[in-house]
Amino acid sequence: MTDRLHSEEMSRSTREWLTRRGVRLEDIAELVLFLQHEYIPGLTIAQWLESIERVLSKREVQNAVLTGIQLDLLAEEGKLIPPLQKMIEEDEGLYGCDEILSLSIVNVYGSIGYTNFGYIDKIKPGVLKKLNEKHKGTVHTFLDDIVGAIAAAASSSIAHRYSN
Amino acid sequence: MTDRLHSEEMSRSTREWLTRRGVRLEDIAELVLFLQHEYIPGLTIAQWLESIERVLSKREVQNAVLTGIQLDLLAEEGKLIPPLQKMIEEDEGLYGCDEILSLSIVNVYGSIGYTNFGYIDKIKPGVLKKLNEKHKGTVHTFLDDIVGAIAAAASSSIAHRYSN
Amino acid sequence: MTDRLHSEEMSRSTREWLTRRGVRLEDIAELVLFLQHEYIPGLTIAQWLESIERVLSKREVQNAVLTGIQLDLLAEEGKLIPPLQKMIEEDEGLYGCDEILSLSIVNVYGSIGYTNFGYIDKIKPGVLKKLNEKHKGTVHTFLDDIVGAIAAAASSSIAHRYSN
Amino acid sequence: MTDRLHSEEMSRSTREWLTRRGVRLEDIAELVLFLQHEYIPGLTIAQWLESIERVLSKREVQNAVLTGIQLDLLAEEGKLIPPLQKMIEEDEGLYGCDEILSLSIVNVYGSIGYTNFGYIDKIKPGVLKKLNEKHKGTVHTFLDDIVGAIAAAASSSIAHRYSN
Repeated sequence: MTDRLHSEEMSRSTREWLTRRGVRLEDIAELVLFLQHEYIPGLTIAQWLESIERVLSKREVQNAVLTGIQLDLLAEEGKLIPPLQKMIEEDEGLYGCDEILSLSIVNVYGSIGYTNFGYIDKIKPGVLKKLNEKHKGTVHTFLDDIVGAIAAAASSSIAHRYSN
Repeated sequence: MTDRLHSEEMSRSTREWLTRRGVRLEDIAELVLFLQHEYIPGLTIAQWLESIERVLSKREVQNAVLTGIQLDLLAEEGKLIPPLQKMIEEDEGLYGCDEILSLSIVNVYGSIGYTNFGYIDKIKPGVLKKLNEKHKGTVHTFLDDIVGAIAAAASSSIAHRYSN
Repeated sequence: MTDRLHSEEMSRSTREWLTRRGVRLEDIAELVLFLQHEYIPGLTIAQWLESIERVLSKREVQNAVLTGIQLDLLAEEGKLIPPLQKMIEEDEGLYGCDEILSLSIVNVYGSIGYTNFGYIDKIKPGVLKKLNEKHKGTVHTFLDDIVGAIAAAASSSIAHRYSN
Repeated sequence: MTDRLHSEEMSRSTREWLTRRGVRLEDIAELVLFLQHEYIPGLTIAQWLESIERVLSKREVQNAVLTGIQLDLLAEEGKLIPPLQKMIEEDEGLYGCDEILSLSIVNVYGSIGYTNFGYIDKIKPGVLKKLNEKHKGTVHTFLDDIVGAIAAAASSSIAHRYSN
């Protein structure tokens, strides 16, 4: 497989797995709207979606999305080594690798996204609320933070693009 | 000056400058309370203050506090090179060095503090609200984030200490 | 299981898995020595080991070690989703989640460890060289960076303790 | 001043200050070459310079460059508060705000740049060696790390562009 093909596979796989795990781009766009509407009026839904596409096209983001979803999946299947299994399954307060991976997503548009990420992660609007409901057999410890991070990065991308 | 003396000077200077810039440890304790009260009941005010002392005793934190306050001071005096002067004076949205320095504070107790930092930075309770009011001649672009970061780190320190 | 028990399990499990994956504390001590000997003469091997123990006692570090080793293990078993499997198995240049997790280890003693981490990761002395040799069926994509990060953090811990 | 004008001023000012402080884009290109030549043969000097331009066009990078140079300048003029003055003037080992600002530069092309940054910061090839010589009255505590970070980010940018 050439690098170019691998790159396309990464991109396609990232989108596919977000969908399979119940997250549509429209759900993320709603989060971006939640974060941004007071600052930059007049943007269209197409522009929100475009900003999300820009974020998802970055290799760094694809790496974090797939790695995080992978760990959620394995936790659902009970296949992790015991102390890790417990921490990820229960989204334990002292486990922070989910935040760390997510910050690598926020980072792609710079430090101005950190505040938005923290805020949305605490308030949990829209799809984040749904992802946080505990259902037996479902683990979204990583996905939850990843989706918030994509929204925060998209919001930074918009700030960079439309305010200068 | 020996290293030991320098270390004491750093520690004393950090506390002094927070006070001079209008931030008391009690103000930060209030922020920690705002972040933590729902999780760990029964902590005393002495324990909140102790957690803040732990954070302020770290060299990494002292470095960030003094560097940030220094840049605020110089912006108040109009002594920065023009484009930087404008950005810091106006706390411009695309300027993120204040967040970056603050994250080095949050970091000392690990990634679980990021969410709290972002949340408090957006909500701006207590002293953060006061620091954010624009008064002619006063610049708190860095201090604002620094104080939120100290509170978030103290809150993480409490989580590490009392939940395991 | 109480929090206290879980904490002990995390600590024990971290040390066990490092051993099982072929890394002894003495190997890490050698890396710390490689990084530090020119700066602080007169430290004993007991002090190097103690600094490594301090690093390994941090929950943030335990989280990263176990999560990284877990991903290496699953890659060895071929159980990851395809594009991730390929990236981790081949330690692909554009995959950076291993560096990201490792930085959360370096972070526990502050930013002065970054330089040491980058340096050792490039030079690959001692055990890092061994971990980097490609053997069929063995994956050390995460472990390699994790071990370098523990050494860099221990080295920072020594700098903080003995230079002030 | 409109945002657009301010953006142009930031960009111009960043380049001007690098030049005034003795760093030419060709010096940085040499560092990129030092980091990259073994991986991607056949790139031209124009492509190295282009990668540096891409890095310097990012607002996040401009912020860090100007903030760091500003602190160096003020240290040269002896205008910092005492403990900070001493730390920056002497490039003290436990002061890490220079690394922190630099990492925000490395970050713009993702975590794969950290290793290169640490390596070059330790080896100090080319212009980095010159910047590190202590001359009375000259302070390059921040500039040194900033230049290494620009080179590391440019090198990551090339890796992203030409290997997939």
